[in-house]
Amino acid sequence: MSEKYISTESYKGVRDFYPEEAAIQQYIFSIWSKTAESFGFSRYDASILEPADLYKAKGAENEEMVNEQTYTFTDRGDREVTLRPEMTPTVARMVAAKQRELALPLRWYSIPNLFRYERPQKGRLREHWQLNCDIFGSNDITSDIETIALAHQTLINFGATSDKFIIIINDRALMQRMYTAIGLNQTQIDSLTHLNDKKKKISAEDYKNQLDIITNDQTISEEVILLLEKSDEQTDVVIGLESLGITNVIFDKSLARGFNYYTGTIFEAFATDEDGQPIGRSLFGGGRYDNLTQLFSSEAVSGIGFGMGDVALKDFIIENNLLPEEVKNTGSYIAVLPTDEEHNLTGQFVASQLRSSKTSVSTDISKRKLGKKISNANENGTKYIIVIGETEAETNNYTLKNLTNGEEVTDDIETLKSLLLG
Amino acid sequence: MSEKYISTESYKGVRDFYPEEAAIQQYIFSIWSKTAESFGFSRYDASILEPADLYKAKGAENEEMVNEQTYTFTDRGDREVTLRPEMTPTVARMVAAKQRELALPLRWYSIPNLFRYERPQKGRLREHWQLNCDIFGSNDITSDIETIALAHQTLINFGATSDKFIIIINDRALMQRMYTAIGLNQTQIDSLTHLNDKKKKISAEDYKNQLDIITNDQTISEEVILLLEKSDEQTDVVIGLESLGITNVIFDKSLARGFNYYTGTIFEAFATDEDGQPIGRSLFGGGRYDNLTQLFSSEAVSGIGFGMGDVALKDFIIENNLLPEEVKNTGSYIAVLPTDEEHNLTGQFVASQLRSSKTSVSTDISKRKLGKKISNANENGTKYIIVIGETEAETNNYTLKNLTNGEEVTDDIETLKSLLLG
Repeated sequence: MSEKYISTESYKGVRDFYPEEAAIQQYIFSIWSKTAESFGFSRYDASILEPADLYKAKGAENEEMVNEQTYTFTDRGDREVTLRPEMTPTVARMVAAKQRELALPLRWYSIPNLFRYERPQKGRLREHWQLNCDIFGSNDITSDIETIALAHQTLINFGATSDKFIIIINDRALMQRMYTAIGLNQTQIDSLTHLNDKKKKISAEDYKNQLDIITNDQTISEEVILLLEKSDEQTDVVIGLESLGITNVIFDKSLARGFNYYTGTIFEAFATDEDGQPIGRSLFGGGRYDNLTQLFSSEAVSGIGFGMGDVALKDFIIENNLLPEEVKNTGSYIAVLPTDEEHNLTGQFVASQLRSSKTSVSTDISKRKLGKKISNANENGTKYIIVIGETEAETNNYTLKNLTNGEEVTDDIETLKSLLLG
Repeated sequence: MSEKYISTESYKGVRDFYPEEAAIQQYIFSIWSKTAESFGFSRYDASILEPADLYKAKGAENEEMVNEQTYTFTDRGDREVTLRPEMTPTVARMVAAKQRELALPLRWYSIPNLFRYERPQKGRLREHWQLNCDIFGSNDITSDIETIALAHQTLINFGATSDKFIIIINDRALMQRMYTAIGLNQTQIDSLTHLNDKKKKISAEDYKNQLDIITNDQTISEEVILLLEKSDEQTDVVIGLESLGITNVIFDKSLARGFNYYTGTIFEAFATDEDGQPIGRSLFGGGRYDNLTQLFSSEAVSGIGFGMGDVALKDFIIENNLLPEEVKNTGSYIAVLPTDEEHNLTGQFVASQLRSSKTSVSTDISKRKLGKKISNANENGTKYIIVIGETEAETNNYTLKNLTNGEEVTDDIETLKSLLLG
C-alpha cells in the first residue's frame, strides 16, 4: 500500500493553509499592509532565491548560520543559491543597487516568507512569514521613533491594547560607549552582546560564570552587572514615543538583539503577563543599521527597520481573542441553490448577473438535497440565498431570502440587483 | 574591488520588485483574489517546499521534468525537496489528505509562486506567480462552464474587452474516442497529444513528418489531419458559456495542453491580433482532471481548474493600456512637510493624529528644502499637504492644502480630521 500511494503529508516543518487557516493568514497580511501603507510605506518584493554570497559577508557568526541554518544548494549552473533566511540583506542589496536613482529617505515594506533549516518546534518553523518595514536614508531620530510607532500601531490595529504588550528599547551605540568606558575591548563587547542576547534563557549563575570568562576580571564583571541593572535613563526615542502617546515602552540596557549589523537604537516587543512582565517569543524586533549597504558599495545609506513574524503574532491574536468573526466565515454573500442538477446552468446565469465587486455569489452545484443546501448556507455565514427550481426557471422571477432576518423579496434579476447594490 | 564588495544583482532568472513594479504585481494579485472571491472561491496556500516524490508519480514525462526542469535538492535530513513547479499536485495532495472532512464540491484558489529551472527568456522566468482556481468534487458540466467563466471574468475585471482575447476549448475524452475510432492505440494517442501541443511552433511539413512516424500509416495520418481541421462542433461547454454571454470562445480539436493528467474539458486563452487570431503566450489554461487524487488514495475526487500567470498577463495589461493611473502613484494621501528638522517630531505627531484606515499619512523628514518637498509631493500623486513650521508648532493650527485644486483650510487637528473623514 505505501508503495502504491504518495503521502499526503507536507514537507517537514512547513504548513498547509486550508481555507480556515489561509483566511487568518490573509487577515494578518491585510492588517500588515494597511498599517504600513497608512504610514506612507511602499511595498517591494523579491524572490526567495538569493545568491548565497549575500549572507556570507557579515562575519563568522553568519558564516555559521549560512552553513548550518539555511537552505543552501548548488544549482545546475554551479551557482550557490540560498532560500532567504531574513529580508534585510535583500532590501539592503536592492537599495544599494539603485541608491543614486532612489529619492531618499525611502519607506519600504514587504511581507516575505523566510526559511531556516532548524528542528521544527512550537512557534519555530522552517518557513514563516514576516512583515518587514524599513526607512532608508535618514539618521534623524524621528525615523527611529516613527519605525517603532508603526510597529506599535500594527499591534493596535489587530485590536491589541497597550497593556497587552511592552516594547523594550536599547541603544547599541550607547552600550558601546559604556562598555568601552568600563574597559572592555571590541571582542569582549561582541561576546557580551551575544551573552546578553540569551540572558533571559539562562540562570543568573550561568550568566555570571560566562560573564567572568569574557571579562576575566571580577571587578569588571560586577561593573557590567551594575550597569545593566540601572535602566532608568530616558532616551530621546522613549521621550519621542511618549509625545506620540506611546507609553508601553521601557529602556533596558540588557537588550542585545542577535544580529551583528545593528549600530544604534534596537528594540523588541513582547506580550505581557498580568503583572506587565514580558512573556513568550518576541512579537516584533528591529533596530538601526547604518552600514549595511556598505557591503555593496563605498556609500553608506542609513537604515532602520523591524520584522514581525506571523507565528508568534497569530498566537497573540488567538490568545487575546482578537480574531474578528468575519474571518471565520467561509460562505459567500449570496448562495444560489438549484433544486436539482437540471437547474445548475440557470443557477450559473443568475449568479453571473448578481456578481459585482461587492457581492460574492456562489452556486451550490452539489448533489445534496435542497434542505441540506440551505442548512449549509446557514452554517457558513452566507447572507442571502436564492433557490432556483421549475417556477423560477420558467418565470425568470427569483426570491432573494435574507438568512439573518428571514425577509424575502421576489422579483426579476435587474430589480434584485439594484436592490442589492443599493 | 570585486573582492571587496558583494554584487547587488539578484539571482539569475528571478525578479526584484521595486515599489513601482510591486504596485503592479499587487494590483494583479488584488484583481485575482477579488474575482475568485466574487465567485465564492476560498483562498488556500501551502509552502513552496514539497517532497520531491509528489512530482515523480505522474509518469515518465514528469520524471524528466522533475530531473531536468525543477529545483530539487537533498536536505540535511536526507529528504529530497522540490521547489514546486506547479500548484495542482499540491492542491490535489491537500484535498486528498482531508477528503472525508471537506464538504464537496470545493471552490479553492491560491496565488502561488512557482519555480522552473530553465534558461531565462522573454516571458519565461525561473520564478513566476500564478492564479490557480479549482473546483473539486463535481463532475457536473456547469463546473467546467463556471471555471472558464471565472477565468474569462478575471480578464474582464482587468478592463479587457472580449474582442481582445479568445478562449480555445477541446475535450480530451472526446479526442480519445475519436482517435480510437481512427485506429490509434494509447501510446500513439499520447504521442499525438504531445505533437499537437507543439503544433503551432512547428511547420506543417514538420508536423506531417512527425505524425507519420507516430501513425506509421499515411491514410491514418490524413484522417487525423482531416479530423483536426473540422472544428465546427458545438459542445455543451461552448453552448453553456454562450448562455452566460461569453462568446469569444472557439472549439478546436487540435488543442492539446501539456499535462498528462487531464481527462475531459481542456482550454487555453490567448490575446488576439487585429484579425481575431490568437497571438503570443497563453493568458490562462486549464482543464478537468478526474483521477489526480487517486495518486494518494483509492478514492477519486473530480477536479477542474486553471492557472493564469503573472508574466504574460502583465504584458497583456501594459500592451492594452489597461493599467489604472492610481497604481502608478507612489505618494500617500497626506504628506506632512516640516520646514526643518526641529519640527520633524511635531510632524510625526500631526501625522499620527490624522492617520486612519482610509488616510495614509507620511512625514517628509528628508533634509530637502520645503520647496523641493512640495514639488516631490506634487510629482508622486499626493492629495494633501500640511506644512509644519514655527507658527504651526506654536499655535497648534495647521493648514491642509489640496494639491489638486489648491484649496486650503486652516484649523486645529480635530477639525481637520473630521473634515478628512467626512
